[in-house]
Amino acid sequence: MPAGGAAARGRQRALLSWLLHERWTHPRLGRLLEKLQPYEESLPYDSDEASLIRVARKQFERESRVPAAFMETMTRHFAATYQAWSKARPADDFSKVEPYLEKTLEYSRQYARYFEPDHLADPLIESFAREGLKAEEIRSLFSRLRSELVPLVRQVVEQPIADDSCLRQSFPEQQQWDFGLRVIERLGYDFSRGRQDRTLHPFCTKFSVGDVRITTRLKENRLGEALFCTIHESGHAMYEQGIRMELEGTPLARGTSSGVHESQSRLWENIVGRSRGFWEHFYPQLQETFPEQLKNVSLDTFYRAINKVEPSLIRTAADELTYNLHVMIRFDLELDLLEGKLAVKDLPEAWRERYKRDLGVFDPGDRDGVLQDVHWHFGTIGGMFQGYTLGNILSAQFYEAALKAHPEIPDQIRGGTFDTLHGWLRENIYQHGRKFTAAELVERVTGSPLTIDPYVRYLKQKYGELYSL
Amino acid sequence: MPAGGAAARGRQRALLSWLLHERWTHPRLGRLLEKLQPYEESLPYDSDEASLIRVARKQFERESRVPAAFMETMTRHFAATYQAWSKARPADDFSKVEPYLEKTLEYSRQYARYFEPDHLADPLIESFAREGLKAEEIRSLFSRLRSELVPLVRQVVEQPIADDSCLRQSFPEQQQWDFGLRVIERLGYDFSRGRQDRTLHPFCTKFSVGDVRITTRLKENRLGEALFCTIHESGHAMYEQGIRMELEGTPLARGTSSGVHESQSRLWENIVGRSRGFWEHFYPQLQETFPEQLKNVSLDTFYRAINKVEPSLIRTAADELTYNLHVMIRFDLELDLLEGKLAVKDLPEAWRERYKRDLGVFDPGDRDGVLQDVHWHFGTIGGMFQGYTLGNILSAQFYEAALKAHPEIPDQIRGGTFDTLHGWLRENIYQHGRKFTAAELVERVTGSPLTIDPYVRYLKQKYGELYSL
Repeated sequence: MPAGGAAARGRQRALLSWLLHERWTHPRLGRLLEKLQPYEESLPYDSDEASLIRVARKQFERESRVPAAFMETMTRHFAATYQAWSKARPADDFSKVEPYLEKTLEYSRQYARYFEPDHLADPLIESFAREGLKAEEIRSLFSRLRSELVPLVRQVVEQPIADDSCLRQSFPEQQQWDFGLRVIERLGYDFSRGRQDRTLHPFCTKFSVGDVRITTRLKENRLGEALFCTIHESGHAMYEQGIRMELEGTPLARGTSSGVHESQSRLWENIVGRSRGFWEHFYPQLQETFPEQLKNVSLDTFYRAINKVEPSLIRTAADELTYNLHVMIRFDLELDLLEGKLAVKDLPEAWRERYKRDLGVFDPGDRDGVLQDVHWHFGTIGGMFQGYTLGNILSAQFYEAALKAHPEIPDQIRGGTFDTLHGWLRENIYQHGRKFTAAELVERVTGSPLTIDPYVRYLKQKYGELYSL
Repeated sequence: MPAGGAAARGRQRALLSWLLHERWTHPRLGRLLEKLQPYEESLPYDSDEASLIRVARKQFERESRVPAAFMETMTRHFAATYQAWSKARPADDFSKVEPYLEKTLEYSRQYARYFEPDHLADPLIESFAREGLKAEEIRSLFSRLRSELVPLVRQVVEQPIADDSCLRQSFPEQQQWDFGLRVIERLGYDFSRGRQDRTLHPFCTKFSVGDVRITTRLKENRLGEALFCTIHESGHAMYEQGIRMELEGTPLARGTSSGVHESQSRLWENIVGRSRGFWEHFYPQLQETFPEQLKNVSLDTFYRAINKVEPSLIRTAADELTYNLHVMIRFDLELDLLEGKLAVKDLPEAWRERYKRDLGVFDPGDRDGVLQDVHWHFGTIGGMFQGYTLGNILSAQFYEAALKAHPEIPDQIRGGTFDTLHGWLRENIYQHGRKFTAAELVERVTGSPLTIDPYVRYLKQKYGELYSL
């Protein structure tokens, strides 16, 4: 979007939100939902109709708690905050966003209070991520994960660092682009219902089940940047493309939670796309695409390069293993801010301290510190980050269930075939859209509640092997 | 858009139209407008406030005449018609759209009847093009223009045909693209409030006064295709970018009529962009961009090539001189259909006859005949085409007025400077948006009503010189 379009887009988005909110909170909708209750109870829980009524009622109740005027004020504030952040970050100047963040925190608390919650983060997590989990549950889940991750990262970091210089040669952008498209077509991304464009910050956007688009970024001297972004976004997109057409146009036609959504981008990007088997199939093709650059690079060297572990400052550039430490820092800081244990003015310092403690890295500036992510600067404080790590946890839990049903999947991946895995995911997760909460879905699909065990097993096995621990 | 997105986009557009119609016809709006009448009358006619009330009242009255349910049915029919057309055209099969067109004609008549008009075309022209002219006025205007054009075309065609082979060499697309951008930046298209992308069918689209985008198409072996499309669309875009910011968000913040809009694309594309003076400045730069291809091509040869006249089958590929004949054929056929003088089933034959008579060209198929344009296949029959020729007429009338105020403009164009012309157009036309009807605007700006005289003078002078008539 050209710079001049920002103000009007803000107004247009605010109008659409307002129209949507108006409809979601219309008393007639409430009366209709009430009238439908006996019908809903006469139907199986997992039928489309019962699910539609159930999910719509939940949203009606949630949206009705928050006054439209408050939502409008808060949304307008977000637009101003985003503007401030986009200037503050390049200037490395936290003070430019501080007053905005103060207000954001105030609004986030006010929003939460409309729900009279146990923890102020609960309604934020529910409204903006629909995880179906309380803040305390996530906190204890994350604390267990941290106690597994920190020693594992420490062990890995003590080993010689992987050499990824093979990825830092010159790789013409057009070939990178074409290779990425070929890969995701193979994974099952449907180009008759999507397309890829180029941006600075990759994302997946959906206009309908029939039009789910992705973007990627390209760097000539960084092989993998484009490819893994492309695979990541195609994971989000295949989830949305896989929703049953019958649900189109209803509130059910979208992914169920931030965490489950992220589980699909991470499953395809990391568990599949950074696996050795995947590259046993694709690496020869990649070498053919870049013969000069890769002819003397073995599969093993390449595989180690794309799985290099190195604690760093930037979340979006982090490796699979340290990534969760970035997320958990943010989650904890969100809770501290909401609970009043941490003041906005002390946030940069708290950020630096946690990075030093958890990741062993330090940077005196804020640009690549507390200002690095956009999330708190266009939305609430609370509910914004936990989905990334929940997604990692879920990706392994789902994948383990898929392997249990189809032990042949790893062999198929080695052969460049993804139909069984994609089919299983579509059948068990994608097609349902938002019919089930994340918690219901994980129970239905894996037979157990959300658990970190498969993820920890996956990481220990993969990185144990890679670093001969 | 990926093919899979069409159905949902149709539904989304229908919903937005419906919401808009609902608001435009809300009884409360009527009451407010009534209440505002004394206030309006207390203000100068051309004040923002009086204009806003006046234009809003007109639209309220117009939209209130047509039942929402009818509009919805008609809009849904258009979507189905468009689908049928997009299959019928490649198949060269008029019978595939015939039943749809029958219905379109029926709906067009029904729409018009809600207004109890003198001529069925009048409300269609008013609603969909806002020309501020009656069908009979346009018919008589066009008949006078035709009586000037037909002999002029005949004279030109009797001369040796211009050689445009210099445009049909190989011109790398990226350089064509870059050159086009450089040209329109010079004309005054504001890239901080717009951008250009690539499409099959060029268009201009507006999200707000701060975001007016254009598209173009590129053909490696057809120099000019991209450039003149780019200039054409930038003309539309500069009109919309030039609207005063104070009008943003009101119904006044758009171009006033199809004809006036087209006058701006045509003025920049033809009167400026295909003039000798323009290329005295830009041709050396073009030669620098394509030294191999153009080093032996003189400015004169190039100028004649981009102004080659040759009667042909396709409107969008027609030269400046014969273009209007294409438009007038469609306008007449629209009136004949609405008046019941022509049946839909006889349309292909009538089309061929008129092409033979007016342009001296014949093609037995329908693909490049009656099926070539999308207009009747996604909108009404009536009101769709007259704007193109009205735009040509107006472009010359406006340009003559600009020259009268600033006789230095042609010299400035020769020097590659467009500020005076652009400034005059912005001051006199662009800034007002929709405050004045086309008829009011042309009176205000030129001091006389719409007239074909400046346009005929312009054509006779330019082509008289080019073809030594």
